[in-house]
Amino acid sequence: MRCDVVAVGTELLLGQIVDTNSSWLGEQLAAAGIDSCLQVKVGDNQSRIVAALRQVLRDADAVIVCGGLGPTHDDITREAIAEVMGTTLELDDVIADRIARMFASRNRKMSENNLRQAMVPVGAGVIEQVRGTAPGLICPVGDKVVYAVPGVPYELHEMFERAILPDLLARSGEPRRIASRVLRTWGESESGLNERLQPIIDELDRVGNPTLAFLASGWEGIKVRLTARGADESSVAALLDDWVERVRAVVPEVVFGYDGDTMESVVLDLLRARGLTIGVAESVTGGLVAGRLTATPGSSDVVRGGVVAYANEVKFGVLGVPRGPVISEDTARAMALGVCETVGASVGLALTGVAGPAEQEGATVGTLCLAVAMPDRAASSTTVMLPGDRQTMRELAVISALNYLRQLLLCP
Amino acid sequence: MRCDVVAVGTELLLGQIVDTNSSWLGEQLAAAGIDSCLQVKVGDNQSRIVAALRQVLRDADAVIVCGGLGPTHDDITREAIAEVMGTTLELDDVIADRIARMFASRNRKMSENNLRQAMVPVGAGVIEQVRGTAPGLICPVGDKVVYAVPGVPYELHEMFERAILPDLLARSGEPRRIASRVLRTWGESESGLNERLQPIIDELDRVGNPTLAFLASGWEGIKVRLTARGADESSVAALLDDWVERVRAVVPEVVFGYDGDTMESVVLDLLRARGLTIGVAESVTGGLVAGRLTATPGSSDVVRGGVVAYANEVKFGVLGVPRGPVISEDTARAMALGVCETVGASVGLALTGVAGPAEQEGATVGTLCLAVAMPDRAASSTTVMLPGDRQTMRELAVISALNYLRQLLLCP
Repeated sequence: MRCDVVAVGTELLLGQIVDTNSSWLGEQLAAAGIDSCLQVKVGDNQSRIVAALRQVLRDADAVIVCGGLGPTHDDITREAIAEVMGTTLELDDVIADRIARMFASRNRKMSENNLRQAMVPVGAGVIEQVRGTAPGLICPVGDKVVYAVPGVPYELHEMFERAILPDLLARSGEPRRIASRVLRTWGESESGLNERLQPIIDELDRVGNPTLAFLASGWEGIKVRLTARGADESSVAALLDDWVERVRAVVPEVVFGYDGDTMESVVLDLLRARGLTIGVAESVTGGLVAGRLTATPGSSDVVRGGVVAYANEVKFGVLGVPRGPVISEDTARAMALGVCETVGASVGLALTGVAGPAEQEGATVGTLCLAVAMPDRAASSTTVMLPGDRQTMRELAVISALNYLRQLLLCP
Repeated sequence: MRCDVVAVGTELLLGQIVDTNSSWLGEQLAAAGIDSCLQVKVGDNQSRIVAALRQVLRDADAVIVCGGLGPTHDDITREAIAEVMGTTLELDDVIADRIARMFASRNRKMSENNLRQAMVPVGAGVIEQVRGTAPGLICPVGDKVVYAVPGVPYELHEMFERAILPDLLARSGEPRRIASRVLRTWGESESGLNERLQPIIDELDRVGNPTLAFLASGWEGIKVRLTARGADESSVAALLDDWVERVRAVVPEVVFGYDGDTMESVVLDLLRARGLTIGVAESVTGGLVAGRLTATPGSSDVVRGGVVAYANEVKFGVLGVPRGPVISEDTARAMALGVCETVGASVGLALTGVAGPAEQEGATVGTLCLAVAMPDRAASSTTVMLPGDRQTMRELAVISALNYLRQLLLCP
């Protein structure tokens, strides 16, 4: 089974928008065991869209067209598909009615061109719109098929998962249920994970289901995604449960969460479960740790606040750090204890280090001293070396610090 | 003149890497007045690369192929281009020697397959490699041309600017110098800027040089980019100077900088020029303002630090804010004055507001109260309403606060 992609929009060719839709579709298709061999960007030009569709339909079994389904005169994907099908467009009363009611419910006047979105090639099926005003289309072309979806990513994702992927799997004779789970990791490189998981990867290559993929995600860590197919939801879930556990068992110390978990949500949950509050003392990261913790809705029951002690006088004066070298674990521990007092938190997390461009106190760029003060006022500390430029070092410092705290919170 | 793009790499089709190269090229080509009508992603498969090249060469005058120039067996762009040219590959001794010397200078052993990168289609020109080991290629196909560049973005950018764009402009008979300038703006929507600049846009549409483009860039503001072509560097610079000033004169209050300036670098420069230091008191943004100021290398001579006063007790206890409603300009002013005392700064910047998901103290999500305390301890404040979800609101709060400070620092 081969499904290619045509992304429509002059703004994509001009580089005003990066085409992430076809990348996303390629990822989903690969996870479902469907090849995608050609992905094309083309402008809002009917003859070029038609030529691109005819070209990919020569070799592919199916093609997904993204974009060009809006109400304006340059949204011409519908016309192009009708031309490829050798048919015409007709008004679909059900869609027209739904669009009219959507405008009415928002007390907005519907201009006539919105009914363009209710035009459907004769012989095409409709993928009902859930959020936007444009429905998707399933358009047979001989024994092949053209799917059309809006270019708005969340509308596209929803229609792909609800209608296109099941249709593709049915056409390919594959089992119809597909699902993914993600293990969130931090503390091991992608090549290191790859090496440790090689026996599992080899076995999965043999059995072919589920598939495994690594997704390096910067200061979100590295995601290990398992995607399984099966005849029904419960067998897919059971297969995933089994393999998620097998992967976890090989690299247990680097798995910090699953699926929608983030490092900060996991840390906040651990603190909340123990009735603890947190204060953050930051030098090298300048507020990014507190910024990330407070990005989570509902963090205010756990996060008291923090002190950005960028100038050394702030470390000494506000946090009560003894005067001396500041790129040190002693200083980090004093900062962690100090911020507990300052903001009235039960747990303190502190970072001091060198993001560059120049070294400091003889410590090289990338040096990060971390400390955590616990409710009994015992302070732990460690030093790590981080790679990258100033921005990368600071971002990696944030997740490293949160992970260090996470590990300590897990200790009995 | 039409120049299409073929991006080579199975990892692009699998969505493991988003193809930003063709977007970047599309943007550069458009700015230079060159059309790009089709952009294709294809895997590491020789017959498919050859088919894609033949397809785009039917309609385009030129094609840029990105990627597939590495040393491994799946880097087959060279072979594919030779096939399209109807020729063979031969070893280029100059390139081979340069690759060998690069390995020697790094004390690394060169494996034989690195010499694949010195293979050049007979009749092709070479774009010398400056950083990586793979040179680029200029390959005539009849009266058309195929350019090949590495997929590594900074190598691609450098070769495009140094060799490909001048060659394209020479082929098109266009003047050979091209340059861009960017006005950095904040405080007006893209449609608002568009409306106010419409007379200038109309005039530029008529004269065709320079071109103008808007680039919405989230919490970096909206960029207005002018790109000019001309016979020589000084005439291009003069043309840009003239139009940059004409644009600025229409929207003077929203232009905060040019080209490489950022809001934080502009604010830091204004503070530095007046010998001032800054402290930041943050509630709703939880440290992001201090985090962004300290992202700038060399910020430590200006930034003292800050207090993340997320819990109200921290506002009252650490910053000396009088007890009462905290979503208020009174509280913001007290926070700004308080943080000056706490961290020993001459200027204080404070933010308190509601990022959601729920309203607070009767204030709706999006409410942001800002205050600035100046060295004479006079505090100014304002309230703005910001759109978006929690993350968007917090990011827009950061640049709004820095811009408010910037405007006050510019007052006599």
